[in-house]
Amino acid sequence: MIENKNCIIRLSHYKSALNRFKSLGFIKIFSDYLADAAGVSSAQVRKDFSLFGIAGNKRGGYQIDALLEQLNVILGKNQIQNVILVGAGHMGAALLRYKNFEKEGIRIVCAFDIDPAKCTTKQEIPVLPLSELEKYVAEQAVRIAIICVPAIAAQATLDMLVKAGVKGVLNFAPIQLKAPEDCSLSYVNVETELENLIYKVNARERSDMITREKAALQD
Amino acid sequence: MIENKNCIIRLSHYKSALNRFKSLGFIKIFSDYLADAAGVSSAQVRKDFSLFGIAGNKRGGYQIDALLEQLNVILGKNQIQNVILVGAGHMGAALLRYKNFEKEGIRIVCAFDIDPAKCTTKQEIPVLPLSELEKYVAEQAVRIAIICVPAIAAQATLDMLVKAGVKGVLNFAPIQLKAPEDCSLSYVNVETELENLIYKVNARERSDMITREKAALQD
Repeated sequence: MIENKNCIIRLSHYKSALNRFKSLGFIKIFSDYLADAAGVSSAQVRKDFSLFGIAGNKRGGYQIDALLEQLNVILGKNQIQNVILVGAGHMGAALLRYKNFEKEGIRIVCAFDIDPAKCTTKQEIPVLPLSELEKYVAEQAVRIAIICVPAIAAQATLDMLVKAGVKGVLNFAPIQLKAPEDCSLSYVNVETELENLIYKVNARERSDMITREKAALQD
Repeated sequence: MIENKNCIIRLSHYKSALNRFKSLGFIKIFSDYLADAAGVSSAQVRKDFSLFGIAGNKRGGYQIDALLEQLNVILGKNQIQNVILVGAGHMGAALLRYKNFEKEGIRIVCAFDIDPAKCTTKQEIPVLPLSELEKYVAEQAVRIAIICVPAIAAQATLDMLVKAGVKGVLNFAPIQLKAPEDCSLSYVNVETELENLIYKVNARERSDMITREKAALQD
């Protein structure tokens, strides 16, 4: 099992870039084009591909269709992945309406919420009461879930998902969670990303200001 | 300028954890409590704090209020940060309705969209035509923006933001973008995170299956 998260993320980026090249009419592609579109060096592309046994033709480049198929097999995208979502608030509802997942082989099949007012079976993706989660996960053999509940309810939600048999969770709640070893946990934390950006912008401004002050003193 | 992104992200996590402890009535906290809540070692907490000159009392722990104030200064949160958003589709609209930013000192002040049907000044946060973006950024001295447009429009949006004077961008569009050196770029890519999770869950299942098969052969 190749554990390097960054490598898998790069494979995802290569796949997105390949789909864009394909939609522009390209049939073959060189590693340096792909590298440029994915924001890495072409040596990195070749290294990543060789790690997974993907061979290219140095003169002719890669066949886009064949390459996409290989990447889909590696990323487990040759079959549709059913995903459930817990918490149908603003963020959860936005994800339910998001159309890009399907073309990536990901399908949100059902959502769950503790609030009866949010539950409905009249939409394309049903929102069921939280009490039905365990049965649904077992019956449909769901292994991947997205948590969109408030921070205070997130750990209890994760525990419930793990008990039901879910093996991978993407957490949108702004809190660090604890999962057993056989359940993978990823985070999307918009506040943290914004805070980090704000810090960087402020730090750069301070450092620019100091540079300007020093220059003014030397004049 | 301390450039380590992970360290800044940990500071954000400490801050969230401190706010939770505070809401539970705590006044002081030991580094091991904080470490546990943030999912790191207590040595890491002390190392991060010493890096920014935050001193604790080994016996008495840290004063939560004083610590929060110091973290807010470091993270640039002692003043409200005005942020704009481009693209008021499903994801953008969800972010506009998201209530957690305010308490983190982040305020989305205005959104922009190319679709006149999405533009409105009747909501709490106005959605203006894209043509007004440059003027607004200059007048309000906005430095941080969120991109929520489709992948195909993301680079043009970023170029427009940079030209207007934005210095930090959080991109939700599933595409790698190119920014000049003096503009920081961060990504939230839900598809990539899900793909990565699916890969990990599949890889673990394959490796478990091989282990079971080997065990069966030895019986």
